[in-house]
Amino acid sequence: MPELRKDPVTDRWVIIATDRARRPADFVREPVPNKPSGRFCPYCPGNESKTPPEVIAYRGGGSARNAPGWSLRVVPNKFPVLGIEGDLNREGEGLFDKMQGIGAHEVVIESPDHAMSMADLSERAIEHVLWAFRDRVRDLKNDRRLRYVLLFKNHGESAGATLEHSHSQLIALPVVPKRVTEELEGAQKYYQFKERCVFCDIIRQELRSGTRVVIETDEYAAISPYAARFPFETWILPRQHRSHFEDTEPGQLKNLAWVLKSTLRKLEKVLERPPYNLLIHTAPLQEPGTQHYHWHIEIIPKLRRVAGFEWGTGFYINPTPPEESAQFLRDAGVA
Amino acid sequence: MPELRKDPVTDRWVIIATDRARRPADFVREPVPNKPSGRFCPYCPGNESKTPPEVIAYRGGGSARNAPGWSLRVVPNKFPVLGIEGDLNREGEGLFDKMQGIGAHEVVIESPDHAMSMADLSERAIEHVLWAFRDRVRDLKNDRRLRYVLLFKNHGESAGATLEHSHSQLIALPVVPKRVTEELEGAQKYYQFKERCVFCDIIRQELRSGTRVVIETDEYAAISPYAARFPFETWILPRQHRSHFEDTEPGQLKNLAWVLKSTLRKLEKVLERPPYNLLIHTAPLQEPGTQHYHWHIEIIPKLRRVAGFEWGTGFYINPTPPEESAQFLRDAGVA
Repeated sequence: MPELRKDPVTDRWVIIATDRARRPADFVREPVPNKPSGRFCPYCPGNESKTPPEVIAYRGGGSARNAPGWSLRVVPNKFPVLGIEGDLNREGEGLFDKMQGIGAHEVVIESPDHAMSMADLSERAIEHVLWAFRDRVRDLKNDRRLRYVLLFKNHGESAGATLEHSHSQLIALPVVPKRVTEELEGAQKYYQFKERCVFCDIIRQELRSGTRVVIETDEYAAISPYAARFPFETWILPRQHRSHFEDTEPGQLKNLAWVLKSTLRKLEKVLERPPYNLLIHTAPLQEPGTQHYHWHIEIIPKLRRVAGFEWGTGFYINPTPPEESAQFLRDAGVA
Repeated sequence: MPELRKDPVTDRWVIIATDRARRPADFVREPVPNKPSGRFCPYCPGNESKTPPEVIAYRGGGSARNAPGWSLRVVPNKFPVLGIEGDLNREGEGLFDKMQGIGAHEVVIESPDHAMSMADLSERAIEHVLWAFRDRVRDLKNDRRLRYVLLFKNHGESAGATLEHSHSQLIALPVVPKRVTEELEGAQKYYQFKERCVFCDIIRQELRSGTRVVIETDEYAAISPYAARFPFETWILPRQHRSHFEDTEPGQLKNLAWVLKSTLRKLEKVLERPPYNLLIHTAPLQEPGTQHYHWHIEIIPKLRRVAGFEWGTGFYINPTPPEESAQFLRDAGVA
């Protein structure tokens, strides 16, 4: 008998198909190649002129801007979905509403080494990526037109990556996206009822029961969420309450880098280098820290196609109970 | 300069990338094969024993149940995501909520002819499919445990179809899915403000301006929605206000069949037999007819991959302005 489970934050119901649970080997695999295709890469050292000029870069002493010598570079996306110049110009069109597409779209080139995926990077390099995320969000926050920054990573072609050189992206928006509002409102409702953060409660309950825990450290918990929409969906949450990712104290990024690397390596081992999307869920830029929202990372391996049912309803069918995916990931020792 | 547009029902913002608008030929095509693969098909006449026994069938006089002679068959899905037997047994698990996966999962086999896609079927055959939808929803409505029926069709493998023989599906759920609630609440808010149905207002404005109209008849309008999430997303709306699809008067299904066939043929012509998802958005089963909600069909051609950004935010980037997709579809004459 399948089970319907409700996400305690968003009230989204998910069908967990316990009957015909799918194990890792049951999915159609599309491993992300770990050998470079040999195509020209604008993100490789020496090709700095092929990207727009860098916004920031972490570089060894003495190397020049927009020249080799960097360990990480942030550049504007060459084909941005939003432009940073201009005014919002909100206006109506009969009953419709529109505004200019103001915002920022940047790329974090995570390493000079074309052949390294994020899971292959050193902990130190991953920590630098997290630093870059933090730096950029703190800077973009100064632009009062911007209401939200989405930090995300598409790994592998079928997860939406168009270039194979490991990179993340950032899109800053003049509106708070609907899914974010939904999560914020759900968390607020819980807080009004319980006077506790729902994510803090989830972390406590998960760590106590242990069945859906993938990794636990003093500072973070990686779990398979109770009402996971996707097989092997994995969340990383800070154990200390904090609504905004960019307010993470510098010392806390080190352990996060370790947890993130371990989680990615476990996913790579169990699912054979799957394509995935990684997203940071965080509170809106211009809002002060809140008691009810709790930033976290969501990692969604791309294992199956999403069909009409999911599109139409926001109602997901997950063929792998999160207890089972957590067990597989826990058991996957990674060196 | 890209444009941000808000869906007037759900308040969902969409980026319409007007700068680098993509025309039909710019998308990676994955035409749905129109030659049968030759694999064994459980939906073909003669193979009736390979599906669970039929729920209903439209058949010529004298042919026996679960035997050839039908023009349309509805059968339970052999691998249902929900089972019809049992009780909901709502219960908690600490702060989490769950219930048994009670519901129905049926398949509408649209034609005995394996080689016909829905767009190829006669108007009469499409009308029969719509009749079957109506019949099944009206029957399932009697089961008071069921709160919502999603009627949908996945056409082509990359849209989620696992069998090539043309079929639609129906999933009846014991809860109203989140996306539906969202649309209902948005429509209600508009109604409270304006005392008019938002969909009726959209239809009036679209038919007056004409720029996003694909097909107009006395009874239906097919349009490219103002804040379309996807390139060539197309909606079909009844011009007469009605909240529940299953309350459509029998005489009105004939013209709907014509509009649906024409829309699908236009999409096939312009986009070269694209995979697509078709969904019927309708009001919850156990609720009476309302003034604020308006049933409609949404057709989403599968033209590009959805990446992390869309998943994480519900914030879509549509590279083809709906005015342009409507123009392409209007201009595509179909015999």
